[in-house]
Amino acid sequence: MRIGWVQNRPLPGNREDNLAQVEALIGTHRADLWVLPELFATGYLMADRQALARLAEPLSDGPTPAFLQELAARRECAFVAGVALADRGGLYNAAVAVDASGLRAVYRKVHLFDTERRVFDPGEGPYPVVDLAGARVGIMICFDWRFPEAARALALGGAQVIAHPSNLVLPHCQTAMVTRALENRVFTVTANRVGSEVLGGMSAVFTGASRIVDPEGRVLSDGPEDDIAVDVVEVDPTRADDKAINASNDLFADRRPGAYTARRA
Amino acid sequence: MRIGWVQNRPLPGNREDNLAQVEALIGTHRADLWVLPELFATGYLMADRQALARLAEPLSDGPTPAFLQELAARRECAFVAGVALADRGGLYNAAVAVDASGLRAVYRKVHLFDTERRVFDPGEGPYPVVDLAGARVGIMICFDWRFPEAARALALGGAQVIAHPSNLVLPHCQTAMVTRALENRVFTVTANRVGSEVLGGMSAVFTGASRIVDPEGRVLSDGPEDDIAVDVVEVDPTRADDKAINASNDLFADRRPGAYTARRA
Repeated sequence: MRIGWVQNRPLPGNREDNLAQVEALIGTHRADLWVLPELFATGYLMADRQALARLAEPLSDGPTPAFLQELAARRECAFVAGVALADRGGLYNAAVAVDASGLRAVYRKVHLFDTERRVFDPGEGPYPVVDLAGARVGIMICFDWRFPEAARALALGGAQVIAHPSNLVLPHCQTAMVTRALENRVFTVTANRVGSEVLGGMSAVFTGASRIVDPEGRVLSDGPEDDIAVDVVEVDPTRADDKAINASNDLFADRRPGAYTARRA
Repeated sequence: MRIGWVQNRPLPGNREDNLAQVEALIGTHRADLWVLPELFATGYLMADRQALARLAEPLSDGPTPAFLQELAARRECAFVAGVALADRGGLYNAAVAVDASGLRAVYRKVHLFDTERRVFDPGEGPYPVVDLAGARVGIMICFDWRFPEAARALALGGAQVIAHPSNLVLPHCQTAMVTRALENRVFTVTANRVGSEVLGGMSAVFTGASRIVDPEGRVLSDGPEDDIAVDVVEVDPTRADDKAINASNDLFADRRPGAYTARRA
């Protein structure tokens, strides 16, 4: 299958232009699964909860899921993409999995970063794994990378590919995704944005460098740090089903959950 | 406190020379806590279980723990060091924590790598955290790095410093230790060896590059890839007690164990 990322530079609050930017970036590139950044259609910083409420979309008839479904049908592909979600009476930093048939899965971000806590409600899990575009695709968002339990839960849940919409501002995630791929023997697709935002007393500079890593920890695709971009690679997702790293070690069979406690000696 | 690593090149089966090599490498360097490689006194490859049984030591009066205790007393320091252990009727790839007062903790390797499985018995956990040289020191060995649960258990158990005796042959651990330090906000000290061994149909080339990482993911010390070496850095272990990464996020308070499952969507 062909998996790709889109690295955009959204205009804060300008959904129409942001959707058009993504469609233009994809252009004539072909992928079976596209991963788009966190909050790719709205921008990242929210002045307050009211401002977020004006941008957040319902699942049922939101313009961003509708755009993704229409594009998926027209281009015969699927998306995992970050959206500001108004759902269940809350406001979530979420990601949706969408194909031509419509909404396939939704994930509400569990680990909210920094100022996100002022405006978003946290998700409660579990982490979704969805059959999408010919692979079992797990979803986590941005700061979830810092908690090894997130990718681990997805991999133990059968994910072959971890789709990772992001708005990264810290420098360490891209390197850490090599470890996440290696320790779980999965593919990871981190779609990050570029540009910066300033709003009130808040500011954020996004680090680009969208990245695809394979189960052996090889970086298959690496985006620029400061420009919009798109890339696609061909992968065989079933490689992630084999957790063996040599004739004696299988990373999942070798796990010893009963041993994973500490004792003060 | 001052923490250091010794990167040696042991002679297979020649304990006397290997202990002398470590003492010579330490020389006049001063540290409060030294981390030595996995199986630093015996070498790594074992022809069979009988060969291992001839080299493995008891805890009570083994020459390697005795050497470490004597050196600890003379140099006013402590050690975490890999030893081949004959204990409880089994043979273990183990690490001991030793100071001038004697044996302070023992860890039997839970995740045995490749041919180790032919000769060693696996440890059952838990992972030990011991008050040593003024810090709370957690212990794991080599291939344990590949399982995020090991370092996590140690950090949740209070470890400020993870001592990580190693005989690394794969290229990814040194980079992954940055992730282990970052995700747990702990110091990590990986003591690796150099050189190679060939025995029967087995061979191993060890990758050196012993490394100390701080809770912000900064590499404080990096050894050469192909030579014996020693290094010491000054650290404040209490920095690892603060799991906050900004005004809103605390890596441990933010954990959501109830969310760490997956569901097929």
